[in-house]
Amino acid sequence: MEQKFLELKNRLAEVNDLERILYLLGWDQRVIMPPKGAAVRAERKATIEKIRLEKWASDEIGRLLDDLRPYEESLPYESDEASLIRYARREYERLRRVPPALKAEITRTASLAGAAWIEARQKSDFSLFLPHLQKLVELKHKYVECFDDENVEHIYDILLEEYEPGMKTAEVRAVFDDLKKDLVPLIAAVNERGGAVSDACLHGRFPVDKQREFCLSVIERFGFDPDSWRLDPTVHPFAHGSATTDIRITTRYYENFISPALFGSMHECGHGLYENGVSPALERTPLCQGAWLSLHESQSRMWENLVGRSRPFWRFFYPKLQAAFPNQFSGVNVETFYRAINKVQPSFIRVEADEATYSLHIILRFELEQEIMEGKIALRDLPEVWNARMKSYLGVDVPDDALGVLQDIHWSSGDIGYFATYSLGSIISCQIWEKVLEAMPDIYDQFERGEFMALREWLRENLHRHGRKFTPKETLAKVVGGPINVGPYVKYLKTKYGEIYGL
Amino acid sequence: MEQKFLELKNRLAEVNDLERILYLLGWDQRVIMPPKGAAVRAERKATIEKIRLEKWASDEIGRLLDDLRPYEESLPYESDEASLIRYARREYERLRRVPPALKAEITRTASLAGAAWIEARQKSDFSLFLPHLQKLVELKHKYVECFDDENVEHIYDILLEEYEPGMKTAEVRAVFDDLKKDLVPLIAAVNERGGAVSDACLHGRFPVDKQREFCLSVIERFGFDPDSWRLDPTVHPFAHGSATTDIRITTRYYENFISPALFGSMHECGHGLYENGVSPALERTPLCQGAWLSLHESQSRMWENLVGRSRPFWRFFYPKLQAAFPNQFSGVNVETFYRAINKVQPSFIRVEADEATYSLHIILRFELEQEIMEGKIALRDLPEVWNARMKSYLGVDVPDDALGVLQDIHWSSGDIGYFATYSLGSIISCQIWEKVLEAMPDIYDQFERGEFMALREWLRENLHRHGRKFTPKETLAKVVGGPINVGPYVKYLKTKYGEIYGL
Repeated sequence: MEQKFLELKNRLAEVNDLERILYLLGWDQRVIMPPKGAAVRAERKATIEKIRLEKWASDEIGRLLDDLRPYEESLPYESDEASLIRYARREYERLRRVPPALKAEITRTASLAGAAWIEARQKSDFSLFLPHLQKLVELKHKYVECFDDENVEHIYDILLEEYEPGMKTAEVRAVFDDLKKDLVPLIAAVNERGGAVSDACLHGRFPVDKQREFCLSVIERFGFDPDSWRLDPTVHPFAHGSATTDIRITTRYYENFISPALFGSMHECGHGLYENGVSPALERTPLCQGAWLSLHESQSRMWENLVGRSRPFWRFFYPKLQAAFPNQFSGVNVETFYRAINKVQPSFIRVEADEATYSLHIILRFELEQEIMEGKIALRDLPEVWNARMKSYLGVDVPDDALGVLQDIHWSSGDIGYFATYSLGSIISCQIWEKVLEAMPDIYDQFERGEFMALREWLRENLHRHGRKFTPKETLAKVVGGPINVGPYVKYLKTKYGEIYGL
Repeated sequence: MEQKFLELKNRLAEVNDLERILYLLGWDQRVIMPPKGAAVRAERKATIEKIRLEKWASDEIGRLLDDLRPYEESLPYESDEASLIRYARREYERLRRVPPALKAEITRTASLAGAAWIEARQKSDFSLFLPHLQKLVELKHKYVECFDDENVEHIYDILLEEYEPGMKTAEVRAVFDDLKKDLVPLIAAVNERGGAVSDACLHGRFPVDKQREFCLSVIERFGFDPDSWRLDPTVHPFAHGSATTDIRITTRYYENFISPALFGSMHECGHGLYENGVSPALERTPLCQGAWLSLHESQSRMWENLVGRSRPFWRFFYPKLQAAFPNQFSGVNVETFYRAINKVQPSFIRVEADEATYSLHIILRFELEQEIMEGKIALRDLPEVWNARMKSYLGVDVPDDALGVLQDIHWSSGDIGYFATYSLGSIISCQIWEKVLEAMPDIYDQFERGEFMALREWLRENLHRHGRKFTPKETLAKVVGGPINVGPYVKYLKTKYGEIYGL
């Protein structure tokens, strides 16, 4: 049995190598590659993906998983070995259901849709993207059909499963309904006091090299270590873990606006710390990554918002920021700065949204995606529906498709079912934060001294090290002792913005 | 038949993807990767290499090659299709002969030897490297035995074949004997007039960003285009073609010495132009690369030396160099600079050697490698033999192993048989140069005007576009109309240094 387990492990190590190389090729493409390399790069990635899927869904892995069933049952549920077999079985079964030809067609369609989306967005013309979206939605229906012998409550469950295994549409909807109930009036109340907070000090002139230097000085205190990490500029920031000891985060710098680089680098560092903190014993297994998307996002949001937009954090860092950008900040006190970075401002663009309005952008997409899959919305009407819903949720008038329905890359990549995880991440981050405060009541004092290692170690011990050994729900329960719960997030937002806006 | 050819081509495209990805992982490792990523990276590369070899030497490819024999014979020898089948057959047969276990052992041994070599070089202690070299030489003997049913004149032929297919030890020896006959007295004569040339102006203070800017301004005129190329700093410069439209060259900058970046970037740009100039029709086939190592080196040497160390080149660029580094060069005239960059100075280190002495470093290694494989030298005596030969060829006393037998990385990587190609490249570059001068008698006038596109296009048309469609000898014959011939190189060196040193 040990022999068979070893064979499975070796095969999964190969699969993991291929997957990480695929991600690295994507990282390289977005950060490093000269633009004209794109066409050949697409072929190289397709080759790796094809081999990866062949190896994952191979008969040999199927046989090993069958043979190893008694071995798995003989091991403690929490052991690395049982967890690896369990994970492999779930993934193998999922991959076996989808015919390679369908997968290839989705990849090819998404590749064309991606190019069309770029053009459509540039010209702010949804009609250029519409036929591609129609094709993608058709293919997603075919994908869903691969699972139709399962007892599925909602077709959207199948899509969600890819990004957040075990999470059902009804659960997310319940969570989001709860959230919406509190968020919409909160934002309306803030809106009434719109002039109370100014973020003028964040706009000005911030030389890129100084921004980079300051961002590094922050994330180095979070755990960024040049021996195992990189920070590079890119257009659409993201994090990539090539290995637990090779973490690559990216950010973008605007000469005239400091927030994107500042909070973006803390956000991506949060993702990086999760990948970096997985137990080295899981290296080169498919368990060696964060437990899917919501928990991953909880980590980026935590470092960006609960740490990086808190007063104690800036009590330590603000004098350093002032020293780095004296023209900009010497006449601005820390309280004005704190209010500026926490300004609430309903806007069109999700990625630029503040903490309070962000989730409404997500809920809108989550609802639309279901209605699209259910056929309740004709795709050609999508811009109109989008704009009406933006007006109703956020009170804004969307001026054109580029600032509306065409703003996100996800659908063009074939990612339908992804968005919800962003807000689930924010919700979870506040649940975890309550546990952090219980475990380390002096955590804010530590921040005021520029100390963040206790937080990182707590997260590593309670969350990061598990990687994907457990399902998202199991993992969450290990950290917070229960299921997802919107309470702490709502309380956090009400307290914070109540104070800032004097509600 | 077309169907079978297409199947072969698709399989070879996969193999090519894997090979290029393997190189890219190496590029990333040397240019980008945080140091602690090394251990996992070694495993990832091993996985790709294993899959690549399995796919190359697969029974399916063997069957296709058998089936395609009549098709190949029906096609013109020069066609892309016949050339691809021919290349694939040769490579397939070579790969099938070497058992995967032996290949894996060579890779593993080289990996350990590489680490040992670094330590041995740091401590200048050959004894630390000796057991690894012994093991590697043993394995190379086993490798050679895989080919022992072939009619092999010299066991070293088998090693040479990997880097320069079709080239025999006896031929190289004849070429090098010719060369040595002229080089040793030439260098002795130059040595007698050692004080005649000073390179003091090349040493001083050269800010790295200014160096980079100037190097780019040069290679942009050679054909470097940021849409398809990158230039990055690294410790041991090299060039990598990830695709014909994704060329990555590297260089190193010394704050106090301008030559390495200046001539190194031209050298690597020469390699890059070869990869960039292969016919796009060969993209994603194994033919899409320069025709092995000598011809590749002929291109780097040509741009570095025949172009980059010529008077006409500097008549155009020297005023720009003076403007970039006024403190350094404003009081130095172009003739003094020209002499400085062409100074001959026997030294210990191959990679720092000038054009005239370089080949003696190579000949020494070429001779030692044969004697090692023949068992004529006991490996433990290697430092002693090395030092004695350096004294005899170059007249220098090697002070220690780090500056002597331990200086090169090649043996520790398992590369025995590689060195000769460097000098063959220099020889070939002068043969090609005679053809260039015949075809474009005004080429030096073009250089004086800063124009290099006619040269690049000539090289593309006559050499680069063929890629690996033909053997090195066939390819050379296409460009120069005959076999390798040391005459033009010797004439070039005698004329150039005769004039500079007044011999």
